Amino acid sequence: MVSLSGVRVVLCRPSHPGNIGAAARAMKTMGLADLRLVAPEKHPAPEAQWLAANALDVLQGSRVHASLAEAISDCVAAFALSARPREWSPQVLDVRTAAARALGLGGKVAFVFGTERAGLENDEVFACQYLVHIPANPTSSSLNLAQAVQVVAYELFMAAGSVPARQRKGRAATVEDLDGLYAHLEQAAVGSGFLDPQSGSRLRERWRRLFSRLELEREEVNILRGLLNALQDPRPK
Amino acid sequence: MVSLSGVRVVLCRPSHPGNIGAAARAMKTMGLADLRLVAPEKHPAPEAQWLAANALDVLQGSRVHASLAEAISDCVAAFALSARPREWSPQVLDVRTAAARALGLGGKVAFVFGTERAGLENDEVFACQYLVHIPANPTSSSLNLAQAVQVVAYELFMAAGSVPARQRKGRAATVEDLDGLYAHLEQAAVGSGFLDPQSGSRLRERWRRLFSRLELEREEVNILRGLLNALQDPRPK
Repeated sequence: MVSLSGVRVVLCRPSHPGNIGAAARAMKTMGLADLRLVAPEKHPAPEAQWLAANALDVLQGSRVHASLAEAISDCVAAFALSARPREWSPQVLDVRTAAARALGLGGKVAFVFGTERAGLENDEVFACQYLVHIPANPTSSSLNLAQAVQVVAYELFMAAGSVPARQRKGRAATVEDLDGLYAHLEQAAVGSGFLDPQSGSRLRERWRRLFSRLELEREEVNILRGLLNALQDPRPK
Repeated sequence: MVSLSGVRVVLCRPSHPGNIGAAARAMKTMGLADLRLVAPEKHPAPEAQWLAANALDVLQGSRVHASLAEAISDCVAAFALSARPREWSPQVLDVRTAAARALGLGGKVAFVFGTERAGLENDEVFACQYLVHIPANPTSSSLNLAQAVQVVAYELFMAAGSVPARQRKGRAATVEDLDGLYAHLEQAAVGSGFLDPQSGSRLRERWRRLFSRLELEREEVNILRGLLNALQDPRPK
């Protein structure tokens, strides 16, 4: 059985503390323990404790972050949950596939949930490497927040029992490594005249979508950035 | 897709009306509509309506029965949910196996849930043909009632085979496109001094390994080559 200790649940701007408690309970039933809250509206609150039931330890061990970026910076990948399609999105996976993928990555991973009413904002989805949907009735696809957490946690538990640990050759790049690569690409593209920063081009989204499919290793990020450096400042012949 | 119209959810003696509403919502997200309540403690109640959200139709279409036997009499099989092992029990299945089995039976089937606090009584389990467990953390295996309904409904939806195949957005790159990209990368790497062609470096193999994981689209190859062109020959500022 693959360990679930590297799996994190991130709730972005939850408005009802009861849902935080219910999410903690859902996590604990499936062996998850790492809960992060980004800018919760009301926390701590007694309703969260009532609904956490015997998962008070998960609730009390949760950490609060000011931003999503901070909550996932040490993860090798973040999976954004969304019930609705997005015009642009990272790679889209159903939750069963996502759970297996996440556990095979060999590092910390985060599953990221939006607000009860409106879900994740576009820039929050954009900060993640995968978009995950829970297959559902097309005419009524919006699960309650804690119930979405329950289904994700359940699929992770099922995947942990059946997915063989993937042998990586190298060490996985972190979100911070990837953000460094994207910033470098952008600087190179603007510096070379390939990208006009005023143009409203979707180039940034395109290469995020492209590289998020790669599960890059840290050494590969270094190779790509090394090539960019050399192209930006060629050695004299 | 197998129809879910023959699948019934039966809640035995639910004590909190909010859970009835939340169960109705969980059912509707997964395309289930047939809800039966056996001797509910408080029904109807406004809390049920609040938590049903847009599944009011499921809630209002529910039927109340005096006994479990009455609620399942027209079914070909009933599946009893239980978190705890039983001294005696019918055939035990995990929920994924149970969902597939239920849909293969070719008749009406019921998934039967007990009270929030104590689950099903022994004679209720005995009235069913299968005992179903949701795989969970052995030290904290008790899901909230509506969350258990959510996982069961989700597995039924998955078993019904409704997951659409993922659509690619763009046209896949050909081997020729990819070879053009590799040649261009090599030329850029050598031209910029990043790669010494005499060095026996494994860089070529590294980026082939890297890009072969991508399933690149043709337009993405063009973006990468456009960036390389711009870096090799920057526009005057």
